[in-house]
Amino acid sequence: MAALARSVLVTGSNRGIGLELVRQLAASPRPPQHIFATCRDPKGPRGKVSVGTGNGMVLSQALQELAAQHSSIKLVQLDTVNLPSIQGAMRAVGYHLKDQGLNLLINNAGISSHATLRSLDSREMLNVFATNVVGPLQVVKEFLPLLEQAAKSTGKEGLSCSRAAVINISTKLGSIGLCLRVPEAPMYPYRASKAAQNMVTRCLAAELQDKGILCVAIHPGWVKTDMGTEEAPLTVEHSVRGILTVLASLSQDTSGAFLDWEGNSLPW
Amino acid sequence: MAALARSVLVTGSNRGIGLELVRQLAASPRPPQHIFATCRDPKGPRGKVSVGTGNGMVLSQALQELAAQHSSIKLVQLDTVNLPSIQGAMRAVGYHLKDQGLNLLINNAGISSHATLRSLDSREMLNVFATNVVGPLQVVKEFLPLLEQAAKSTGKEGLSCSRAAVINISTKLGSIGLCLRVPEAPMYPYRASKAAQNMVTRCLAAELQDKGILCVAIHPGWVKTDMGTEEAPLTVEHSVRGILTVLASLSQDTSGAFLDWEGNSLPW
Ligand SMILES: NC(=O)c1ccc[n+]([C@@H]2O[C@H](COP(=O)([O-])OP(=O)(O)OC[C@H]3O[C@@H](n4cnc5c(N)ncnc54)[C@H](OP(=O)(O)O)[C@@H]3O)[C@@H](O)[C@H]2O)c1
Ligand SMILES: NC(=O)c1ccc[n+]([C@@H]2O[C@H](COP(=O)([O-])OP(=O)(O)OC[C@H]3O[C@@H](n4cnc5c(N)ncnc54)[C@H](OP(=O)(O)O)[C@@H]3O)[C@@H](O)[C@H]2O)c1
Repeated sequence: MAALARSVLVTGSNRGIGLELVRQLAASPRPPQHIFATCRDPKGPRGKVSVGTGNGMVLSQALQELAAQHSSIKLVQLDTVNLPSIQGAMRAVGYHLKDQGLNLLINNAGISSHATLRSLDSREMLNVFATNVVGPLQVVKEFLPLLEQAAKSTGKEGLSCSRAAVINISTKLGSIGLCLRVPEAPMYPYRASKAAQNMVTRCLAAELQDKGILCVAIHPGWVKTDMGTEEAPLTVEHSVRGILTVLASLSQDTSGAFLDWEGNSLPW
Repeated sequence: MAALARSVLVTGSNRGIGLELVRQLAASPRPPQHIFATCRDPKGPRGKVSVGTGNGMVLSQALQELAAQHSSIKLVQLDTVNLPSIQGAMRAVGYHLKDQGLNLLINNAGISSHATLRSLDSREMLNVFATNVVGPLQVVKEFLPLLEQAAKSTGKEGLSCSRAAVINISTKLGSIGLCLRVPEAPMYPYRASKAAQNMVTRCLAAELQDKGILCVAIHPGWVKTDMGTEEAPLTVEHSVRGILTVLASLSQDTSGAFLDWEGNSLPW
């Protein structure tokens, strides 16, 4: 099997789904040449404990250890709500890639909020929008020159993750169509932010297809991470294995789609 | 024909679609007893000139003149992004309504943004979310006791605007499903905010139906207002006549729907 992509960048890769994406990419039979594992604080212990690994390890430490085992992994500081940080990461990544550009950008970083109508707070809601909608869009905006470079330099036709792609990690809870049927608490800020993020994915797909860049929204399933909690039915290993299989299958036909970790299409 | 509702509140009613909603409600054969025409600055001239009226009138002045002709209209200060302002408006409205509650809340106030990927600014994008998503949700949250009171006190069964309802003025540009087919510029902030607002409408519909409160998203068409510009094909008179006909037809079956001014269903 060919490599998924020559170069991949993952946001929020110090724990949860992001960390597992980096782990499986690095361990694959034909790993990407460059895996940019980005997070807010690649050097420091952030003191959070992973549900997924369950062993009480400080979490950027897990990423540091992984990077020590795989020369393909480069740790890069990237806070998705901080423009100078995004721009600094873009320069660092561009420096590594020379003129081949970045093939695959995975916007994984996100935050949740369980606020109900009763507990709603406008500051918190705007904070969720900043992280889940504005952040990913700013990351795409700043990395666009590198994605365009990749789209041109691979010599490939059509759309694919091995040419140039933006993957936005979304959620079924962001499906407006499923909303009346999903039994969980309303979670207004999180749901609204992910519906907005889906619109951004779709606008990007429309705008970037002529540049040879694919854009897709992926629901990872309900996954055992700090966000998903231990109650979730899926392990991160299982979810990420599914996601990577779906990514390898993406093409012109699926650009602008909203798919789950098994490749099923979800309604907006 | 029965009155649409005994009491109606409209946000952003000093110009555009909001002003015309107040005008047609007040002029209808059986007008609501109470029309709460709210805006940021009911007393002051805001110096903006209406495309719709086209006569260069200062715009809260048009609302003041309308209120002088109809005793049903009460001007109330309400800035939808200012919580104390929302709470003050709620107290003023509650005082007028005594214990009958508010039947119909129309979240009309909104702002646009034409930002493209290139011109994107995170502060501006968050401002659009604050006005188009968080504001309407906070208004519903604060007015909920009055809506619940209305749902109980009308003695009606089922859902309708004459019992208790929230109408969120949305837009076709907020349809994620139509996004790839709508030819206009991406307008990321506006589109994403309206998709998020649609999610809020849908969550509210799910949460409030057991309390007897209907929630619907309405696309007014492309309308000649300051926002829609003179290029728009529809007059405000035409759009608002359509909207009010649609509102009168809403029921249990359409709660949680996304309809245009002619009653056609739009995809999320
Ligand atoms: N778990 C699920 O069941 C589930 C279901 C559907 C969708 N998702 C989506 O999947 C994605 C990953 O979720 P997860 O379950 O892995 O969550 P998680 O365990 O809570 O991890 C979230 C990651 O995002 C990072 N992050 C948050 N804000 C950031 C910022 N401003 N800049 C950079 N990184 C930031 C966190 O970094 P710090 O350590 O610095 O906070 C962390 O690495 C999210 O987009 C989430 O919405 C998850
Ligand atoms: N016109 C169209 O073609 C079109 C199409 C689809 C959807 N819509 C939607 O229809 C609604 C009305 O649009 P319009 O065309 O009438 O726009 P408009 O002529 O620009 O008027 C917007 C109104 O919203 C008010 N507003 C904005 N922010 C506010 C705030 N924080 N608090 C209170 N009021 C606020 C404005 O008040 P100030 O005078 O104080 O600024 C004004 O009264 C909007 O939600 C819009 O998205 C319009």
